[in-house]
Amino acid sequence: MKRDYFIALEKRSSDNPLSLPEVIEQLAFNEQGLIPVIVQDANTLFILMFAWMNKEALQKTLATHRMTYWSRSRQKLWVKGETSGHAQRLLAMSFDCDGDAILCQVVQQGAACHTGRSSCFYLHIESDKQRVWVRGEQDDPSIILKNTGRNR
Amino acid sequence: MKRDYFIALEKRSSDNPLSLPEVIEQLAFNEQGLIPVIVQDANTLFILMFAWMNKEALQKTLATHRMTYWSRSRQKLWVKGETSGHAQRLLAMSFDCDGDAILCQVVQQGAACHTGRSSCFYLHIESDKQRVWVRGEQDDPSIILKNTGRNR
Repeated sequence: MKRDYFIALEKRSSDNPLSLPEVIEQLAFNEQGLIPVIVQDANTLFILMFAWMNKEALQKTLATHRMTYWSRSRQKLWVKGETSGHAQRLLAMSFDCDGDAILCQVVQQGAACHTGRSSCFYLHIESDKQRVWVRGEQDDPSIILKNTGRNR
Repeated sequence: MKRDYFIALEKRSSDNPLSLPEVIEQLAFNEQGLIPVIVQDANTLFILMFAWMNKEALQKTLATHRMTYWSRSRQKLWVKGETSGHAQRLLAMSFDCDGDAILCQVVQQGAACHTGRSSCFYLHIESDKQRVWVRGEQDDPSIILKNTGRNR
């Protein structure tokens, strides 16, 4: 997975930027031409959702600052919010050390999840009791995994 | 991608938990038996890294509360920190609405990234200038994508 291009970047000077199109060409799109995308609320830093982009979706997102994904179920480009109105405006984007994942910080309009919840990550594990809780929006956001101080 | 099991959970009562082993059996592990894992610092909420787990790694992580992944490059289980000492203690875990991604909030010991940086997401995109900046730990964490208020 680790490729020479990204290994060479590890020690690159922080005042010597790279060309974005060049880096995009080196990203580790998988066999289906997709790369994982983590979507984080730019204000709260909560994780909103996880999705996939192909190169076209990535370029469209960068050009419009409107989050655009590849829908694996519908097998087509998916401009987030185009039907629901729950659009996401891109504020910041970064790639990871291996060039195989993208992190986006966004301003979310309405709910990120198709269920109407603010986040798609609403199935919370309580490991010591071997249970999973389905959380809604009105739930008490208190701790459910033993000994944790936070659960968002 | 969307499967009946997780669709049925969308409207399940929040006071009626599920069996964790049952939900794990339904998770959408891919053709290689892997599921994506987003790793978030439980205190700062910064994204530390992105990795993959197979079912064994997930069960080991839940049993030990020590983050354990599947290393795709080495094709074996990888207990984070076993060689570097940079271990991660699991505080909270959740699954997303489709059962095809895992979010973990952790306490990170030392650097999350193999390069010594606190996060693996250090290649920052400046979209309007079509550039990518390689950030180090001493960098000013100020904004580099146009019009953004934050960049971590």
